[in-house]
Amino acid sequence: MMIVIMQPDATVAQIGAVLRACQERDLRPVPNHGTERTVIGVIHADQRTDLSDVAALPGVDQVTPVSKALQLVSREFRDEATVVHAGGVAIGGPEFVVMAGPCSVETEEQIHACAQQVAACGGRILRGGAYKPRTSPYSFQGLGEEGLQLLTAAGRAAGLPTVTEVMHPDLVETVARYADILQIGARNVQNYALLSAVGRVRKPVLLKRGMMSTIEELLMAAEYILAGGNGQVILCERGIRTFETSVRNTLDVSAVPVIKSQSHLPVILDPSHAAGKREFVPALALASLAAGADGIMIEMHPVPEEAYSDGRQSLDFPAFAQLMDTLRPVGEALGRPVAAARTDPSLT
Amino acid sequence: MMIVIMQPDATVAQIGAVLRACQERDLRPVPNHGTERTVIGVIHADQRTDLSDVAALPGVDQVTPVSKALQLVSREFRDEATVVHAGGVAIGGPEFVVMAGPCSVETEEQIHACAQQVAACGGRILRGGAYKPRTSPYSFQGLGEEGLQLLTAAGRAAGLPTVTEVMHPDLVETVARYADILQIGARNVQNYALLSAVGRVRKPVLLKRGMMSTIEELLMAAEYILAGGNGQVILCERGIRTFETSVRNTLDVSAVPVIKSQSHLPVILDPSHAAGKREFVPALALASLAAGADGIMIEMHPVPEEAYSDGRQSLDFPAFAQLMDTLRPVGEALGRPVAAARTDPSLT
Amino acid sequence: MMIVIMQPDATVAQIGAVLRACQERDLRPVPNHGTERTVIGVIHADQRTDLSDVAALPGVDQVTPVSKALQLVSREFRDEATVVHAGGVAIGGPEFVVMAGPCSVETEEQIHACAQQVAACGGRILRGGAYKPRTSPYSFQGLGEEGLQLLTAAGRAAGLPTVTEVMHPDLVETVARYADILQIGARNVQNYALLSAVGRVRKPVLLKRGMMSTIEELLMAAEYILAGGNGQVILCERGIRTFETSVRNTLDVSAVPVIKSQSHLPVILDPSHAAGKREFVPALALASLAAGADGIMIEMHPVPEEAYSDGRQSLDFPAFAQLMDTLRPVGEALGRPVAAARTDPSLT
Amino acid sequence: MMIVIMQPDATVAQIGAVLRACQERDLRPVPNHGTERTVIGVIHADQRTDLSDVAALPGVDQVTPVSKALQLVSREFRDEATVVHAGGVAIGGPEFVVMAGPCSVETEEQIHACAQQVAACGGRILRGGAYKPRTSPYSFQGLGEEGLQLLTAAGRAAGLPTVTEVMHPDLVETVARYADILQIGARNVQNYALLSAVGRVRKPVLLKRGMMSTIEELLMAAEYILAGGNGQVILCERGIRTFETSVRNTLDVSAVPVIKSQSHLPVILDPSHAAGKREFVPALALASLAAGADGIMIEMHPVPEEAYSDGRQSLDFPAFAQLMDTLRPVGEALGRPVAAARTDPSLT
Repeated sequence: MMIVIMQPDATVAQIGAVLRACQERDLRPVPNHGTERTVIGVIHADQRTDLSDVAALPGVDQVTPVSKALQLVSREFRDEATVVHAGGVAIGGPEFVVMAGPCSVETEEQIHACAQQVAACGGRILRGGAYKPRTSPYSFQGLGEEGLQLLTAAGRAAGLPTVTEVMHPDLVETVARYADILQIGARNVQNYALLSAVGRVRKPVLLKRGMMSTIEELLMAAEYILAGGNGQVILCERGIRTFETSVRNTLDVSAVPVIKSQSHLPVILDPSHAAGKREFVPALALASLAAGADGIMIEMHPVPEEAYSDGRQSLDFPAFAQLMDTLRPVGEALGRPVAAARTDPSLT
Repeated sequence: MMIVIMQPDATVAQIGAVLRACQERDLRPVPNHGTERTVIGVIHADQRTDLSDVAALPGVDQVTPVSKALQLVSREFRDEATVVHAGGVAIGGPEFVVMAGPCSVETEEQIHACAQQVAACGGRILRGGAYKPRTSPYSFQGLGEEGLQLLTAAGRAAGLPTVTEVMHPDLVETVARYADILQIGARNVQNYALLSAVGRVRKPVLLKRGMMSTIEELLMAAEYILAGGNGQVILCERGIRTFETSVRNTLDVSAVPVIKSQSHLPVILDPSHAAGKREFVPALALASLAAGADGIMIEMHPVPEEAYSDGRQSLDFPAFAQLMDTLRPVGEALGRPVAAARTDPSLT
Repeated sequence: MMIVIMQPDATVAQIGAVLRACQERDLRPVPNHGTERTVIGVIHADQRTDLSDVAALPGVDQVTPVSKALQLVSREFRDEATVVHAGGVAIGGPEFVVMAGPCSVETEEQIHACAQQVAACGGRILRGGAYKPRTSPYSFQGLGEEGLQLLTAAGRAAGLPTVTEVMHPDLVETVARYADILQIGARNVQNYALLSAVGRVRKPVLLKRGMMSTIEELLMAAEYILAGGNGQVILCERGIRTFETSVRNTLDVSAVPVIKSQSHLPVILDPSHAAGKREFVPALALASLAAGADGIMIEMHPVPEEAYSDGRQSLDFPAFAQLMDTLRPVGEALGRPVAAARTDPSLT
Repeated sequence: MMIVIMQPDATVAQIGAVLRACQERDLRPVPNHGTERTVIGVIHADQRTDLSDVAALPGVDQVTPVSKALQLVSREFRDEATVVHAGGVAIGGPEFVVMAGPCSVETEEQIHACAQQVAACGGRILRGGAYKPRTSPYSFQGLGEEGLQLLTAAGRAAGLPTVTEVMHPDLVETVARYADILQIGARNVQNYALLSAVGRVRKPVLLKRGMMSTIEELLMAAEYILAGGNGQVILCERGIRTFETSVRNTLDVSAVPVIKSQSHLPVILDPSHAAGKREFVPALALASLAAGADGIMIEMHPVPEEAYSDGRQSLDFPAFAQLMDTLRPVGEALGRPVAAARTDPSLT
């Protein structure tokens, strides 16, 4: 990849001219408007590509190659933190964002009740699976498009944007029609056909780290999405596979400072999938907040014992309310506010 | 899943009647013709499904539920070893089958030379990637359909069936038109959309274990393919991710006896991807043969230093020839013959 | 092991009689004085041991076997949290205890400066290695007994108890003469000769989890010490070995709630050894506090670049002071106070 | 460390003079008599040590520093394979050496029967634990010195040298009085006090890789022993801890070619501890032989179901006899003979 660095006082018209010049040559330009100047990544170009005509355009400061495999995701390319906006909620900004909901959308009543509880307690985004990746072909595979409809309706009623998983490139369009954030699950972190597909949509993507992906591989997977033209990516650490068996996966809390040192993308943690047991979730949620994560994703169910999937790690409603109450003062102490519980009785 | 066990003397017509009775009720029957009797797995049926009408059909011995998640892949369902046939080569039979070729198909000359060398040395199947899964979006991604054409032509000229990776459900049909065996790569072992897609074709599938997959998860992934109706599956262990860094991945040789104890499917090993360095490949290839694997997959290149990908772990032609010569007497000692080198000078 | 459960109103004399009765029979009694009643573990006894005479003693409620391998360390044996007292500091009580100091004691000036800084910033215990376990026999192995003398003198001058590692059973007595807490390093967590040796002294032991130990194995190692008669054990998670290479070891924060659910012993974390790089230490220290740990151990050095060992992960003095200032409000929010910085200018 | 390279025609007297010159200066010389010339490692010397007087001695070719941490164990220091001699058996020579016996010495009858069976089937060394490292302090800890006596007597009666574990520096002398090879167990691979202690004796040492030691760490541990003056070290890979749970530990067969490429020391594998289940042992034993190991260590018991420890992974007598018969032709095919079964009926 080559990078075109514009002069600090380059005009919008000059930037536009560079973008057009690249497109005319079948190179894909990715503009990054920083506070000081605009930098344009030119994908499909390498050191042998003659960009002397682009370098000669007005407003261009210099044209230079980027040698590292990590490019668009790196701090080198963009030093400012990226803030992802989904349905009015900012992820990666000052607020610590709690996403919560059931593992699977099961019934209208279930997802509606969850949405109301999430909103009432200060959660900001509703999660819920409609297409479920299951290790066994004989397990419950989700409600499909009907699940998407129920999830969206419940979110809208509670004033919450939604996040849900997409597993198949052919379903990206459908899921994008309903959800505010497209989730790529841990098993698909190196499914390049799928990464490319979500790189072409204009919806935020929540990319889960594989349970045995290195941080570098996670960033490379995000690079696929950014290289496709979609810069709205949230990274999510959800536990890695280790020899320890007392939890489902070992939550790699150190991924937060490591990723923050290398990339501008927001990072959230998923204590529920890591712990695998609900009694360990609050400690890990607090640790996530303290470690500097931009948010967490929590599994919650009206009656966890009856959940179709992942009930063992789901909080019930009172436990979720209590967790939110515990997070709030710590967020305040850290200068990282957690949204207040809603007091409007019409909503609870 | 339910299992319909036919009487030892059940006729083809009786078996056909059971299959039809299941299909009429939207249950998917999977017949398994053993040497003693036929057993029919009935997918989408569970203990609550009333199969009393099927149980009453002539030739039926008994109808019984299978409780375990592992079903069609298990020794419980089929005790005899499955032999997969691909272009005249039997994998899982008495012969130890060597698949070899370059990581990527690069040019006509390259793949043609490889095919001739594989055949000359006693290799039985030609491998070569046309669609390459790459960690970085900026690495060489393969020649695509042109690569498939070159691979098939080279294989045909050398009298070798071919195996190549398919990464996208939408490409399954295309790849199946060319290759004799469809490979599912390690990164896609839990890409359920892809597993289902290859479950619907009538070509053998080589399913690679993910570097992070347990053996149980590998068998579950295979179950997706068998449940889709395709029983021609070869399992491939290619190294797992551990803390050890002197090799690319740790070849889990114990996977061979473990899988053999649980499943009837053939198992091969891939010493090249595990070792990551060509000097360690021969020792691991010998260990694979001795451990009871049904074959190995070896990366080879005319000039490894110039390979587009994986050159560090590719054998050159003399090293491959020498490896084959080393394997042969050990195979003989184990009663597991390795095909002889061709003496026809027109081919070498 | 058998357990003798005393009646709630059993007298000290009655308890003493039970202890004597066990000792006379060469069984080792371990009394545990709870708030409600005393429970006595009888080591070397099993279900075949006839304890009917003990059961008949006045004040005894019942005698019952404990079947699990985890016994003295378990919540089953003692439900109340154990508080370990070392030189006036309570570990496992309400306060979050910060232990800090250099990896190795190098010179009198260095350890003295460190001790003053630890004390000035609110640290409560001084750490410093005199005997260093080194992967290579040619690396710096520590100052030995001279190091112990320097450490103790520096601690005393700053009003701080000390913790230091003991590596050899023959040195336990020497180290115990100087230090307030004996540290068993990660590499020695299954060195049973050493565990037994520290089980026989009357000094608190800080037992580090091996980078390869499961939590269950850590608790078993602690059981060796408790079974030896020493109940003053602090557990320390210091990062486990995983496939991730961006940090030295992956800090297993979930070990805190897991251990707390199984054992009554206090747990601290060591973010420095886990991170391996000083820039990641503060995030992990905050996560440790939030996850419910009873304290942390931090490496600090006047000039980290010149440290004999582990300089890359050591904080300098200003960074340590800042970390303490960051921890304090979070501790307050959690109801887990961190000691205030000393304002006495004579000390800073 | 510095290396003194002697001239090819240096005399024994000249070599002796160099050794004395080093010793007089408190440097420890480690002579390595190769087929072409003698090389002397000088421990405790570094680049600042003035060795110009030594360099000037007759017969000295050159004096040069070794910069790597791996020194005495490396191929760089000694290119020829080291052959370890124990009670008349050569490990690391042309023969593939099978060590076998029970996990623990239990009774005179048991160890005697095992010794006879090992010898009868072509095994060359008798193993048996007298001091057992056990995760739980309440498990069987071995018979101690009585176990050593029984082991040695049984070995002598069957004409087999013996190998047994030593866990405590203080017991090294005792164990060395009985056994022909001192085993350092996997849990003690970084117990530097113990490594140094066995470095001072003149008995071969079998050093087991820790279940989470890298190969580099294993070589470093061996370096401790060699630096102590004992060059008779056999390395043993016994399975590493991974995420896979179908076996006890994952046998890292690739450790064989990796170690052989870096070190001159002999390497054996322990399929029994790795597999954890006896049915997987033969496949792994064959793989060990084929991968180029110098031998294997096999657990065997007259009645595995009644073994005090590790019964699940122990072969019974007929299974061991069959394994040896399976190994023999493969060894022959590889040019790596396995000793013949004894036909002398007086012994079987």
